[in-house]
Amino acid sequence: MWSVISRVKSGQRCLELRLGFRRHTEGPGTMAVQDGRVRAGVRTHTVRLGGGCGLWYSSGTRLNEGLLFRQLFESESSTYTYLLADRETKDAVLIDPVLETIDRDLKLVHELGLHLKVAVNTHCHADHITSTGLMKTRLAGLKSAISKVSGASADILLSDGDKIAFGKHYLTVRETPGHTDGCVTLVTQDRRMAFTGDALLIRGCGRTDFQQGCAERLYSSVHEKIFTLPDRCLIYPAHDYLGQTVSTVGEERMFNPRLTKSLEEFVNIMNNLNLPKPSKIDISVPANLVCGVHHVGMPCTRRRE
Amino acid sequence: MWSVISRVKSGQRCLELRLGFRRHTEGPGTMAVQDGRVRAGVRTHTVRLGGGCGLWYSSGTRLNEGLLFRQLFESESSTYTYLLADRETKDAVLIDPVLETIDRDLKLVHELGLHLKVAVNTHCHADHITSTGLMKTRLAGLKSAISKVSGASADILLSDGDKIAFGKHYLTVRETPGHTDGCVTLVTQDRRMAFTGDALLIRGCGRTDFQQGCAERLYSSVHEKIFTLPDRCLIYPAHDYLGQTVSTVGEERMFNPRLTKSLEEFVNIMNNLNLPKPSKIDISVPANLVCGVHHVGMPCTRRRE
Repeated sequence: MWSVISRVKSGQRCLELRLGFRRHTEGPGTMAVQDGRVRAGVRTHTVRLGGGCGLWYSSGTRLNEGLLFRQLFESESSTYTYLLADRETKDAVLIDPVLETIDRDLKLVHELGLHLKVAVNTHCHADHITSTGLMKTRLAGLKSAISKVSGASADILLSDGDKIAFGKHYLTVRETPGHTDGCVTLVTQDRRMAFTGDALLIRGCGRTDFQQGCAERLYSSVHEKIFTLPDRCLIYPAHDYLGQTVSTVGEERMFNPRLTKSLEEFVNIMNNLNLPKPSKIDISVPANLVCGVHHVGMPCTRRRE
Repeated sequence: MWSVISRVKSGQRCLELRLGFRRHTEGPGTMAVQDGRVRAGVRTHTVRLGGGCGLWYSSGTRLNEGLLFRQLFESESSTYTYLLADRETKDAVLIDPVLETIDRDLKLVHELGLHLKVAVNTHCHADHITSTGLMKTRLAGLKSAISKVSGASADILLSDGDKIAFGKHYLTVRETPGHTDGCVTLVTQDRRMAFTGDALLIRGCGRTDFQQGCAERLYSSVHEKIFTLPDRCLIYPAHDYLGQTVSTVGEERMFNPRLTKSLEEFVNIMNNLNLPKPSKIDISVPANLVCGVHHVGMPCTRRRE
């Protein structure tokens, strides 16, 4: 099995060169183009996974030509799970899957004929148990992924600048600590979609009062790693509690009631939220440190470094 | 105030001519094109509303260039509300807004600087009270809309083929009775998005055992008015109870466990669901017949014909 991860050498700067675009005829009366990109001055080693083809499926929020995208919701923990796939090769990535909805998610993967290659968590969740470990026992070849800094075990331990490839698409890892040390934001290659985990929520952000939480670090992460994305970049968080599904960098820069404040004000807000402890934290965190499978006695591959 | 509704002469066939496409530079490294269309042989009289401009906002599921789109969720009744707007003129339409989330929805409209012109219900809901009536008291110029056949009162009574315009965009009304007599599906002009109300749900459909429900009619509506849309047309239903947010015509044609059956099997399924009566039906239906405002003593304009 080829690796889906490529490393960008630390300290090297990415120079994005737009080379041109390809044009595709999509269906009756519609056309779309997509820019092609290369990165210069960067030592990348992205290898595409597998092959496979079949029917093409359309998607919600299809920003990239050929990208299938689905947003899914788990109501008990108000968690969003995201499915992304290359419509041509059918290679897919699942972000933040939840144990309670594993059957729904696998059914959809099966119906759409996808080859799910990586199930990645944006961080070690405290409010729900991930399904990545159990999912690995039900899907041959599936790899789990989480940030190296999280301290959790997984097949793939991610660091800043890593890429998770699926077909011709990839997600780039941006480390965005503050809610936890190991939080990451995953950004599509065209910087049109960012999966922000608990670092940035719609008009909110993750709490910073447990699990290595640090308001100052979160403030820096959001301002330096997320608010520097284009204003139109879509923000897809790990949670929403008000029925909101998506925002944009521009909106959050303008309307986020916490992150539009000064650092001092933000720290003061975060230190005075007085939230109750997540009801499942004592179960979820130990479980999520081993891909959510401690309770079924099937630990995933440990690759602590 | 100009009308937002145009009528298509009954019996006339629409001939869509693709004329070409425009190209827009969207942001760093991205490009997009949109086809231009005209309808020939159709007597349309769509008039654009108002003007207005300002900042451009990106959106979720931005399939049309210049279309802002947001999917919103109300958890008590598991209802989806949809906000669509022309990013240039900022004219907007809201589909199936719920009373409990009126503040959230109006806050978003305000933050995005939109001119909300029409709040439309896909049918007279039995499970929640619409916010259209109350919203009219809080937004000057807002018009309510619902199908003429529903028997409900509203500023605009819709019929098959009508168009609801907002800026350069419009939704076309397709009557899809069966769940109720007055159910409609609203389709974007490029037939890439269909707001199906309770006629077609993701892997399901609305019940047919009250409020003029008729399984045979629903089967015909879905097969003749929705499944005839392009396979890639995105399906946005009024409800989902499993955390799913979107589907496609192609998927539902292939995987819908009810509507892939024969008419006879479908009718048998629908007649044996044995569902409990919606808990709010005795409150919601009378309220929704007058835009949801009977309880606040502010009936909306009655235009029964």
